[in-house]
Amino acid sequence: MSSSKASPVSPLAPLHVPELPPIRGVRLATAEAGIRYAGRTDVLYVGLDAGTRAAGVFTRSRCPSAPVDWCREALKDGGARALVVNSGNANAFTGLKGREAVALTAAIAAKAAGCGDQEVYVASTGVIGEPLDARKFEGVLADCAASAVPGAEAWAAAARAIMTTDTFPKLATRTAEIGGVAVTINGFAKGAGMIAPDMATMLAFVFTDAALPQDVLQTLIAEGAADSFNCVTVDGDTSTSDTLLAFATGAAGNAEIAQASDRRLALFRAALNDLLEELAQLVARDGEGARKFVTVRVEGAESDASAHHIAMSIANSPLVKTAVAGEDANWGRVVMAVGKAGEPADRDRLAIWFGDVRVAVSGARDPDYSEDAASAVMREDAVTIRVDLGLGEGSARVWTCDLTKEYVAINGDYRS
Amino acid sequence: MSSSKASPVSPLAPLHVPELPPIRGVRLATAEAGIRYAGRTDVLYVGLDAGTRAAGVFTRSRCPSAPVDWCREALKDGGARALVVNSGNANAFTGLKGREAVALTAAIAAKAAGCGDQEVYVASTGVIGEPLDARKFEGVLADCAASAVPGAEAWAAAARAIMTTDTFPKLATRTAEIGGVAVTINGFAKGAGMIAPDMATMLAFVFTDAALPQDVLQTLIAEGAADSFNCVTVDGDTSTSDTLLAFATGAAGNAEIAQASDRRLALFRAALNDLLEELAQLVARDGEGARKFVTVRVEGAESDASAHHIAMSIANSPLVKTAVAGEDANWGRVVMAVGKAGEPADRDRLAIWFGDVRVAVSGARDPDYSEDAASAVMREDAVTIRVDLGLGEGSARVWTCDLTKEYVAINGDYRS
Repeated sequence: MSSSKASPVSPLAPLHVPELPPIRGVRLATAEAGIRYAGRTDVLYVGLDAGTRAAGVFTRSRCPSAPVDWCREALKDGGARALVVNSGNANAFTGLKGREAVALTAAIAAKAAGCGDQEVYVASTGVIGEPLDARKFEGVLADCAASAVPGAEAWAAAARAIMTTDTFPKLATRTAEIGGVAVTINGFAKGAGMIAPDMATMLAFVFTDAALPQDVLQTLIAEGAADSFNCVTVDGDTSTSDTLLAFATGAAGNAEIAQASDRRLALFRAALNDLLEELAQLVARDGEGARKFVTVRVEGAESDASAHHIAMSIANSPLVKTAVAGEDANWGRVVMAVGKAGEPADRDRLAIWFGDVRVAVSGARDPDYSEDAASAVMREDAVTIRVDLGLGEGSARVWTCDLTKEYVAINGDYRS
Repeated sequence: MSSSKASPVSPLAPLHVPELPPIRGVRLATAEAGIRYAGRTDVLYVGLDAGTRAAGVFTRSRCPSAPVDWCREALKDGGARALVVNSGNANAFTGLKGREAVALTAAIAAKAAGCGDQEVYVASTGVIGEPLDARKFEGVLADCAASAVPGAEAWAAAARAIMTTDTFPKLATRTAEIGGVAVTINGFAKGAGMIAPDMATMLAFVFTDAALPQDVLQTLIAEGAADSFNCVTVDGDTSTSDTLLAFATGAAGNAEIAQASDRRLALFRAALNDLLEELAQLVARDGEGARKFVTVRVEGAESDASAHHIAMSIANSPLVKTAVAGEDANWGRVVMAVGKAGEPADRDRLAIWFGDVRVAVSGARDPDYSEDAASAVMREDAVTIRVDLGLGEGSARVWTCDLTKEYVAINGDYRS
């Protein structure tokens, strides 16, 4: 019964959406398959040249969607010729019918692309628990395969077709070189909280013309995800369908490098990480109801893992998030969130900053703390909360947004 | 700069507040010490006869308040002659000054009660990070000690004096017998979310005239807390100051029993657990902004601990809680919350009920599921969400409330 009425664009949206250059070996097309929405595209088809390798990172949910299961299986071969993404139905918690639907989707796409079923990757986002009628892809995907193109407009259309309650499309591009050969990386994502009325999921897709062995691509994308998408949270809720897929066509013709740790991949790795970071930030900037973009930095922890856990405890705390929404430099709630994380912490060594304003030090309020200065920080669109635990060298940085009445309105539906 | 303007009483408040009988050896008094509030009581003094034993359970926060540290230390002796509770200031994250303030509070109370400092227990709730001026207790506590009385009005006043943003006082009473001797148990609590504008903490105090060795009282109260206060959540945020203290005066004159497991304590244990359960439920019913009281039951898990973890994942999920607020039987979000808990779960064996309506079975929507019937369940003031994992015998039950715009308004402050 949920509607998908358009929300106003997030005040945190970037001023300009980048134009993406072509990636040799990648062609895109979108269509209206009528999965759930009327009057908008809801299917994305991406054709990939022979020789493309794929890698992926998926939700840690113990109840993953059927497409997630499918992609994990397809990655065992690792070749890729097509990607199909639909919005409107997540094909999650759909039992045997869900497995049949994703298999039929892949078969239709494989026929259109002229490849094997296991060379097709599938991602779905939308309602959970509704059977997905994959027969709607018949014809649609063949048309897409015939009409797919590499240009900037196709990339922009792709980012729009996979949106659910996102208020703006999320695209990024980078260039790098490998052994003196120029390569390009494009990516797009959808997010928008975790779930809007019945909608779910963070999806991101990255494409490059670099030639990379599958295991190298997998290592690079997993490391990149750890520092980008795994550092973003809107409400702490984990989708059944989160998917990050990377495709390397090899069309750039660089010499392949066998080890992810090889220094000749340093520029590529940096560019990829930067792109993933940009996309992850865009997801937080489009969190449901978001009015503030929040960066949480934790330093001085016993380890990086401990710092990350504490940073997530702060970023997921409803009380911290509502305080940010209220533009209240409420560092007592930050202490609370540090304490509840269960990680090593010494109350009497804690220091806390909002922006550059230190509000607490040595386990008590900073005697020099100016409420005016802190309030000025809180009025900005982007707020950084920094905590120094004073115990060790561990650090972490995560992104989130504030918790507003609009989040409750979007997700509460209020049908009564 | 927060205000404590009165909120309307929660629609989930009980129709009647119970009248508490006297407990031999317990006398109570309240006063206005002007800690933070104007025109209301903010201090509770409880005098306890010689021979009273104390036990306690405290927050798991790594950043506990100074009073929590004090009580943990006092329990090493275990004797109790006085309890002092103040609202308005939590004396948390106040550094050395905080330790001095709680020591001064205890010294003032000890002088008034004619006992040792270590026989005084202290609990504080309110603002974090503001120094507490304990000199305000001078005189006030001596007056309280002189005027403390055992009657029903004193109990009611006690429950009101410790409120912060609670919208109603929370009291409960039970009777039992130990070896044929009648005993009484009284208790009161404050909660109201975790933190309202700058306010924090769940506090609960239980008093009995039963004679019980300290270790037995400690075992009983810890076991009771595990199944009551540790099963209630409003927003998943953990206070620095959560405190449950139990006091046994021994005035009933029953024969002391040396083992908590002794069958002669069965009736007392049952009555105590029942009282703790009632108080814990009252806390959820007064959750900030709550309009629905939610019980989450998880069955068929691999262990009770696993079931509890999954139940808490459901109860703390913003998306589940906003769906309940919207009266939406959104079982897809329950699947999500099961999946994110990280506990053993088999998507294809899951079954989910709202009230008596089974909405999902065998990993997919229940084919016989009536949306009308589920919607009728969701319109009730009290909603039960039940999940059967189909894996084992582990079960758990927790209580929570919905997440409404009022929660955000109360905690967001919106000073701008």
